[in-house]
Amino acid sequence: SRSINLAVIPGDGIGQEVVAEGLKVLSAVLPQDVKLETKDYDFGARRYHDTGETLTDADLDALKQHDAILLGAIGDPSVPSGVLERGFLLKLRFAFDHHVNLRPSKLLPGVATPLAGEPQIDFVVVREGTEGPYTGNGGTIRKGTAHEVATEVSVNTAFGVERVVRDAFARAQARPRKKLTLVHKNNVLTFAGHLWTNIFNKVAAEFPEVTTDYIHVDAATIYLVTDPGRFDVIVTDNLFGDIITDLAAAVSGGIGVAASGNINPSGEFPSMFEPVHGSAPDIAGQGKADPSATVLSVALLLRHLGYEAEAARIEDAVSADLAERTGKAARSTAEIGDALAVRVTG
Amino acid sequence: SRSINLAVIPGDGIGQEVVAEGLKVLSAVLPQDVKLETKDYDFGARRYHDTGETLTDADLDALKQHDAILLGAIGDPSVPSGVLERGFLLKLRFAFDHHVNLRPSKLLPGVATPLAGEPQIDFVVVREGTEGPYTGNGGTIRKGTAHEVATEVSVNTAFGVERVVRDAFARAQARPRKKLTLVHKNNVLTFAGHLWTNIFNKVAAEFPEVTTDYIHVDAATIYLVTDPGRFDVIVTDNLFGDIITDLAAAVSGGIGVAASGNINPSGEFPSMFEPVHGSAPDIAGQGKADPSATVLSVALLLRHLGYEAEAARIEDAVSADLAERTGKAARSTAEIGDALAVRVTG
Ligand SMILES: CC(C)[C@H](C(=O)O)[C@@H](O)C(=O)O
Ligand SMILES: CC(C)[C@H](C(=O)O)[C@@H](O)C(=O)O
Repeated sequence: SRSINLAVIPGDGIGQEVVAEGLKVLSAVLPQDVKLETKDYDFGARRYHDTGETLTDADLDALKQHDAILLGAIGDPSVPSGVLERGFLLKLRFAFDHHVNLRPSKLLPGVATPLAGEPQIDFVVVREGTEGPYTGNGGTIRKGTAHEVATEVSVNTAFGVERVVRDAFARAQARPRKKLTLVHKNNVLTFAGHLWTNIFNKVAAEFPEVTTDYIHVDAATIYLVTDPGRFDVIVTDNLFGDIITDLAAAVSGGIGVAASGNINPSGEFPSMFEPVHGSAPDIAGQGKADPSATVLSVALLLRHLGYEAEAARIEDAVSADLAERTGKAARSTAEIGDALAVRVTG
Repeated sequence: SRSINLAVIPGDGIGQEVVAEGLKVLSAVLPQDVKLETKDYDFGARRYHDTGETLTDADLDALKQHDAILLGAIGDPSVPSGVLERGFLLKLRFAFDHHVNLRPSKLLPGVATPLAGEPQIDFVVVREGTEGPYTGNGGTIRKGTAHEVATEVSVNTAFGVERVVRDAFARAQARPRKKLTLVHKNNVLTFAGHLWTNIFNKVAAEFPEVTTDYIHVDAATIYLVTDPGRFDVIVTDNLFGDIITDLAAAVSGGIGVAASGNINPSGEFPSMFEPVHGSAPDIAGQGKADPSATVLSVALLLRHLGYEAEAARIEDAVSADLAERTGKAARSTAEIGDALAVRVTG
């Protein structure tokens, strides 16, 4: 019989609330014969304040035993900027070699967008997750003085770039439009830019059916608001991916519906699924958060574990729920979760 | 009697056409007693192909003699990516210490925006121009092999950050809303992020009337499409500034109207003014380019040289011209320039 052994990290702020709904929908959608086991982990601001710990080696060993990880959100204004981001979230992405950071953007019918007209948006960003300016390389000298110098080193390897580029080509190949766009800034960041561009062109030769395209990151932000329909699959570096996926989320219905997967394709380590949004402390505990992004992240999780039909059922349920929202009274986090749980079983 | 000794760099593609209109409007707006001298420089793709040169020491010496520089656009597909960008444009910005890269965004009445509703957009981005990931520091080892490693080093100094932050505070102080937003990614790029944040907070204490705000660059792209009215003055690093000003241009009427100044505030070196758009080789030589961005860059140039009334006359002329475009037949580059030249004298 089948089973899913899931690590659950509700985290801070609205993380708790949205993860509860994600699990509700997950339980509802799974067939009877699939045994779902979950274990909660208390990472985040509270644990940091209590113990000074963000993510220990023992934590990593424990998490490693799971099939996948569901994360709500990590971050609180009471913790200095960077401590939980670098000490927990990025540490986990790096430790578990989550090199494919998958962020789909689809503007669903009936969903409001800040863009005029009726843009067609349906693309996936494959963001590199373990290199680039995110490595933490760099440093500071003469800190706090008038002569301080702070550096940040973007590290890019042929190994790291090729595997994510290859993953993106395979995803493009599997989609109807078969189009892949490389987003970088190779006219200024020429060292990293040439590495990315050369590998992209080399791998392209192995995927003759995939149409390819290159766009500078600055121009990409223009297209994301003037012509988002031009994108099918985008592959890009860690920092550019961070920036353009927030913009992509904004134009395709907002971060209330933006899901993401931090994927280790080999399966050597568990992959982690999380909404793109943060912990939103201003609305935490009020039942105001939209759990849809977390629920859609559960769909990505199921697809990753091979439950394609169940993933599609969740996506259809969210799509139907969103389509019926206009003009209705706002519902609480739990009410939306309840409605989605009903839909996936219906 | 007064005089302006201007270096003119038409450059590549549409650069030639739009600069001609910029000069037309400049001549028209200047009072009789101001003597305008211009000297053309042939930098760009043609010269690179003919001589292999992008910008020599002798070129820099010659440019140094001018009061200011007007640039059209540099770049052509026949030149490998990075050669003209690093070898000319960035070389010039760095050599002339253009540390304040000024990019205003204002959605003028009657101008189309990709955003729904009627957003109020009127802000200025002060982009640092001589540091960050643009320094060209970094390198490549094992180039072209499976073990290649390419690095890009973002260099940030207290000296460099403080002077641009100070400039931005002074600009915010001089505007009615007196609001300054720092855009960075200090939760991930903690070395550079802390330097920027600490200096920002330190200088803030000297400007008690200025309201301050901090936003991560990824979130800033969301606000630029969902709530651009929240911004008054933004100060940010070289790369983040590059990215968000293209997006800012897109939402506030497009790169057809986005102007910029590469400013050396001390006046030790001439400042350079250029449209944010590129050389657009696909429409070059056809009289299709909108010269408004270049004309508005001429306004920034005049303001920088102390001709405030003339700068305002140009801005009013462009504003009036744009307001009357809807429903009219498209005009050529020269026709728009002619119309603006008439308006500024009217
Ligand atoms: C919180 C932060 C470290 C993170 C990132 O920059 O990757 C977030 O913005 C994201 O996109 O998941
Ligand atoms: C052409 C390129 C080097 C330049 C930059 O990145 O600064 C351009 O995008 C700009 O914004 O002026």
